[in-house]
Amino acid sequence: MTLTPEQQAEIDAARKAPRPTLRAVSEGMERHLYTAHEVLDHGLVRVIDYMGDDAAITQAARVSYGRGTRAVSNDEGLIRYLMRHWHSTPFEMCEVKFHVKLPVFVARQWIRHRTANVNEYSARYSILDREFYIPAPEHLAAQSTVNNQGRGELLEGEEAARVLDILRDDAMRAYDHYEDMLSQDGQKGLARELARMNLPANVYTQWYWKVDLHNLFHFLRLRADAHAQHEIRVYAETMCEIARDWVPLAYGAFEDYRLGGVSLSGKAVEVLKRRLAGETVTQETSGMSKGEWREFEGVWE
Amino acid sequence: MTLTPEQQAEIDAARKAPRPTLRAVSEGMERHLYTAHEVLDHGLVRVIDYMGDDAAITQAARVSYGRGTRAVSNDEGLIRYLMRHWHSTPFEMCEVKFHVKLPVFVARQWIRHRTANVNEYSARYSILDREFYIPAPEHLAAQSTVNNQGRGELLEGEEAARVLDILRDDAMRAYDHYEDMLSQDGQKGLARELARMNLPANVYTQWYWKVDLHNLFHFLRLRADAHAQHEIRVYAETMCEIARDWVPLAYGAFEDYRLGGVSLSGKAVEVLKRRLAGETVTQETSGMSKGEWREFEGVWE
Amino acid sequence: MTLTPEQQAEIDAARKAPRPTLRAVSEGMERHLYTAHEVLDHGLVRVIDYMGDDAAITQAARVSYGRGTRAVSNDEGLIRYLMRHWHSTPFEMCEVKFHVKLPVFVARQWIRHRTANVNEYSARYSILDREFYIPAPEHLAAQSTVNNQGRGELLEGEEAARVLDILRDDAMRAYDHYEDMLSQDGQKGLARELARMNLPANVYTQWYWKVDLHNLFHFLRLRADAHAQHEIRVYAETMCEIARDWVPLAYGAFEDYRLGGVSLSGKAVEVLKRRLAGETVTQETSGMSKGEWREFEGVWE
Amino acid sequence: MTLTPEQQAEIDAARKAPRPTLRAVSEGMERHLYTAHEVLDHGLVRVIDYMGDDAAITQAARVSYGRGTRAVSNDEGLIRYLMRHWHSTPFEMCEVKFHVKLPVFVARQWIRHRTANVNEYSARYSILDREFYIPAPEHLAAQSTVNNQGRGELLEGEEAARVLDILRDDAMRAYDHYEDMLSQDGQKGLARELARMNLPANVYTQWYWKVDLHNLFHFLRLRADAHAQHEIRVYAETMCEIARDWVPLAYGAFEDYRLGGVSLSGKAVEVLKRRLAGETVTQETSGMSKGEWREFEGVWE
Repeated sequence: MTLTPEQQAEIDAARKAPRPTLRAVSEGMERHLYTAHEVLDHGLVRVIDYMGDDAAITQAARVSYGRGTRAVSNDEGLIRYLMRHWHSTPFEMCEVKFHVKLPVFVARQWIRHRTANVNEYSARYSILDREFYIPAPEHLAAQSTVNNQGRGELLEGEEAARVLDILRDDAMRAYDHYEDMLSQDGQKGLARELARMNLPANVYTQWYWKVDLHNLFHFLRLRADAHAQHEIRVYAETMCEIARDWVPLAYGAFEDYRLGGVSLSGKAVEVLKRRLAGETVTQETSGMSKGEWREFEGVWE
Repeated sequence: MTLTPEQQAEIDAARKAPRPTLRAVSEGMERHLYTAHEVLDHGLVRVIDYMGDDAAITQAARVSYGRGTRAVSNDEGLIRYLMRHWHSTPFEMCEVKFHVKLPVFVARQWIRHRTANVNEYSARYSILDREFYIPAPEHLAAQSTVNNQGRGELLEGEEAARVLDILRDDAMRAYDHYEDMLSQDGQKGLARELARMNLPANVYTQWYWKVDLHNLFHFLRLRADAHAQHEIRVYAETMCEIARDWVPLAYGAFEDYRLGGVSLSGKAVEVLKRRLAGETVTQETSGMSKGEWREFEGVWE
Repeated sequence: MTLTPEQQAEIDAARKAPRPTLRAVSEGMERHLYTAHEVLDHGLVRVIDYMGDDAAITQAARVSYGRGTRAVSNDEGLIRYLMRHWHSTPFEMCEVKFHVKLPVFVARQWIRHRTANVNEYSARYSILDREFYIPAPEHLAAQSTVNNQGRGELLEGEEAARVLDILRDDAMRAYDHYEDMLSQDGQKGLARELARMNLPANVYTQWYWKVDLHNLFHFLRLRADAHAQHEIRVYAETMCEIARDWVPLAYGAFEDYRLGGVSLSGKAVEVLKRRLAGETVTQETSGMSKGEWREFEGVWE
Repeated sequence: MTLTPEQQAEIDAARKAPRPTLRAVSEGMERHLYTAHEVLDHGLVRVIDYMGDDAAITQAARVSYGRGTRAVSNDEGLIRYLMRHWHSTPFEMCEVKFHVKLPVFVARQWIRHRTANVNEYSARYSILDREFYIPAPEHLAAQSTVNNQGRGELLEGEEAARVLDILRDDAMRAYDHYEDMLSQDGQKGLARELARMNLPANVYTQWYWKVDLHNLFHFLRLRADAHAQHEIRVYAETMCEIARDWVPLAYGAFEDYRLGGVSLSGKAVEVLKRRLAGETVTQETSGMSKGEWREFEGVWE
C-alpha cells in the first residue's frame, strides 16, 4: 500500500489535533482513527469517522423498553439479550465510516450489501492508478473439486509461476494500453469513461463506506465466514478487529451469537434431542438430505 | 415540556464534560447537543449525537470525483453543484441522531419515511405518561373547503371551546381508564400491551431517530413545506434551524434548491418560454389542466 | 368484518373474470386472490396481487450460480440449500401485495418493518369508520408477572367485564365526539387531520402492504413467533397459510429452518457437545447467565 | 446478442402458453414478456415478470386518500397529480423484473441504485462467456475538454482504429489466459474466483433486476438523461419504451414532469420573475455563479 506524502502528512496532522466534543467518545476507536490498516498487497482499511459506543446501544434499548429494562442488571447482559433476540434497532444507533482501497472484483461482492452509503472513486472523472492485486503464492489455489465456489489445493511450481506471470503481464499491458488510449500527446485521447473498460478486475479502486453497526455485523457475519472468498475475508477480519476495539461489549455478543453461533433447523433439533436421549441417529433416519447431513455432522463431530 | 430533575441533571452533566476527539467537529452542532428544543405543548427535539460536517460532504465528493473536482474553486460551490445535480451520496456521509417527543398521530406520519433508524418507547414494556397534545387556540382550524387534506379558517367562540373541552376530557378519561385497567390493586391488572389501546392518538410518545443528511433533507423538504400538517411542520422547522447550524453550506444549498425551489414540468417550461417571448398564455392555451394551471400560476403571479 | 355490498360485488366480479397471461402463475395463490380472510373482530387480510412462484426462486438462483447449480438435483433441494445458507436474493424475486385492515396499535408495530411498500388510508383526507377492536374474552389477559412485555393469566368475572365495558364505552364516546367535532351542521367543523387525534389506538385502519418474499419471511418469523403480541400474530398466521399455498417449497424450507429452527450461541454449542459426550452440564458450569440458561433449557428439556 | 437454441426454444414455449390469472394484466406489457431487446453489441433487456398496471397506482392512491380522491375526475388526472406532488408510494405498488445482459462497467454504475433486488451471474461459481463490449465507431469519443466526465468529438481514422484494435486484442488475450488458467488439462486449474480477476471491465455479465415503478423512474430519470454515459443510457432508453407500454399514464406523467421537467432554485425563480416583468438580467446581477448561470441559460435560451 502506498500513501502519497501529502496523504501521510494530512493523516499525521489530523491525528495530532484532538478537539473537544460533547458526544460519546470510544477511546478504543479514537486510536484507530485515520490509521491505515494494510490489507492484501495494495489495499487498506481506515476509519474516517464514527458515532456512538456500547452505551449508545443500551441507551437506545432503554428508550425503547423504558422502565422495563431497569431489571437487567448491566450493560453487557442487556447487549447480549438484544443480540440473542435479534433486536436490531439498538445496534443501528452506532455508525462508522471507512475509507477502503480494494480490488474491483472484491468491490463487486461488497456492494451487494445495499444498506450502506458509498462514495467510490470515479473512473469516469479521474484516472485510476497503476495498482493491481496479484495473489501471494500461499493464496494461489486451484478450483475445489467438491465445491463449485471454493478453492482446493495450492497451485505449485511451474503452474503457479505461469499464473502469476499471466496476471502480472496482462495487468501491466492493460494499464499501458489504458494510458496510451488516454494520452493526448499527438492525438485526441479516448474518453476516460471508455478507456477504463480495458482494465481488469484486479485493478484497485477506493471508496468511502458508511454503515450502521447492525448492518456492519451482518456484513461481517457473511464475509468473515470461512466460506467467504479469501480476498474479501481479509477486509472483514480487519474490520472485526476494529469493531472489537470500538464496541467491545457488542462485538463480544456478536462473536458468541453470530460468528461462533450455529443455526439449527427443526429437523436438526430433533436429531440432537434423540441423540441426547441416547439414540443413534444416522443420515438415513434423520430426515435430512445427504448434503444437509454432511453440513450438520461437520458441526457436531 | 417537562424534563424530570434526573433528566435535567443528566443533560447538565453531559454538557459540562467535553472530551477530546480526532473526529470532525461542528462547533455549531456542539452547541445544540443535548439541548431540549420545545415543540408543541409537551414535545421536544434534541440532538443526541452527530457525525460529519460540511467538509465531510466535499471530502466524499472528492473521493468520488477524484482529481476532477480540483477545478471547483471552493467548498460552497462544490456543495451547491452537488445539490443542483441531485448527487445524493456525499450528503449521506453525515449522520444525526435526535431524541424526539411527539404525539402519536405525528409519529405515524413521520415513520412513513423509511430510510432512518428508530427506537421508540414501547408501550408493551412500559407505561406511558399522562401527556396529551391539545392544540393552542390559534391552531384550532376548520376543515378546508377547497382542500381535502387542509385546514381552513380558525374555529371561534363556543365551537372552539367545546372542541378543546372534548379533547381534554376524553384524553383525561382515557388515561384514567388506562390506569384503572393496569392497576394491580385488588385485581390482576390488564396487560400493558392491551391497555394502551385505549389511549387516543394525541398521547405523547418518544423515540430516538437517526438519519443521514440526504434523507433528513428529503424529510424536511416534505415536512417543512406549507402543505404539511402544522403539528409535524413545527418539528421540521426546529430541525431546519439545527441543520443550519450543523452544516451551514449544505443547508444553504438545500434552502435555495429545495425549500425555495420549484419543479417545472415540460409543459410549464414551454409556457414560460412563450411568455418570455412576449406571448400571452392562458390555461386554455397552456395544455395544462385547471388544477395544474392554478398551482402554476400560484408560483408566477 | 363487514364488506360493503359494493366491495363484495367488485370482488365477485374480479374473481369471475380470469384473463390470459404469459407470466408465472401460482395456482395456489390464484385461489386466494381477493378473498377476504377475517382476522380479529373487524380485520381482514386479502391478496391483491402477486409476482412469482417457487420456480422464480430457483430460476434466479440458477442465474446467479449458473452452471454450478445444475448439480443440485431438484428444486426443493436447491430452495432448502438457499434457505439454510441465508441466500436472500433469490427469495426477493417474489413479491406480494396485501390489503390489510387492522387496529392502529397493530399497524404501529407492523410499520417498524421498513422494507415494504405501504399505502395507508389517510385520516387527513378521509373519515375513519366506527370500527374498534375489542378483545374476545379468551384474549383478555393480565400483565405477565415474569415478562415485562408478555401476558399472564386471563382476566375473569367482574374485572374482565369492567375492562370490556371501558374499552367499548371509551371507543364509542371517542367516535361520537369525533363525529361531533367534524360535523358541519350549524358549525364550521374541525379539520379532519385534527379531529382524528381523539380516536384511540384500537380504531381500525387499512392499508396496501407490498413486500418481497424474503422480507415477508423475516416479518413472519418475528410476528408469527410465540413472543409476538397475539393481535399481530393472528395476522402473521393468516399470511403463513397464504404463503404456504403460494410457494409451497419455499414455505416448507422457511418452516423448518426459521419457524421451527433454533439459533445457538458458541457457548450453547459447547454445552451440547459436552452433553453429547456424556457430561452433566449445569448453568453454573455452562458459562451462560441465568436468563440465557433458562431460555436454552426451554429448548432442550 | 446470442441466444442459445435452448434459450430461444424456452422463450418460444413460454410465449405460446398463456395461462388464466385473476390478477391485473397489462396488455402492453404482455407483448414484451420474454422478448429479448438487443442493446449494445451483445447486451439485452427482457421482461421476465411484472405486477400491476396504471389502475394499481390509482387504486393504491384511493386507498390512501379514501373518499377524498373521488373528486378527481379521472385516472390520468390523478396520476399526474401524484407525480407532480412527489407522492411516491402509489407508484411503488407496481413491480417489474428484468433479465439484463450488460458489460461489467455498466453493471458497476447500475448497482449504485440500491433499492432494487438483484441476482447476478456469479463468476465464483461459473465460467463467463467470451463476450466483450467493443464500441461502435460512432460512439468512440474523445475525452471532453470542458467536462471532466463527458465525451467530446469522435476519434477518427488511425487513432480510432488503434483503440478498437487494443480493446479487441486485450479482451481476446485476457479471455485466452482466463481459459488457460482455468484449464484442468494437465494441470490443477486455477480457482474460478481467482481466474476471473484477469477479465477486463467490458466483459459481459447478466442479472435479474427487480424494482418497483417509483424506483425504476428514479433510475430512468438519472440514466436516460443526456449526461448519463452512453452505454448505460441505451439500456435506460430501452426500458423507457417498455415502461411506456406497461403503464402508459404513469409513463406520460413521468415524461412530462421528470424527463422533460426542470428544477429551479429560488434564485432562478427570482431571475425568471424579473425577466417576465421586463427586466434584463445578466449573470452579474443574477446572484448565480458562472457555472450555475451557464446551466440556467442552457434551459432558457
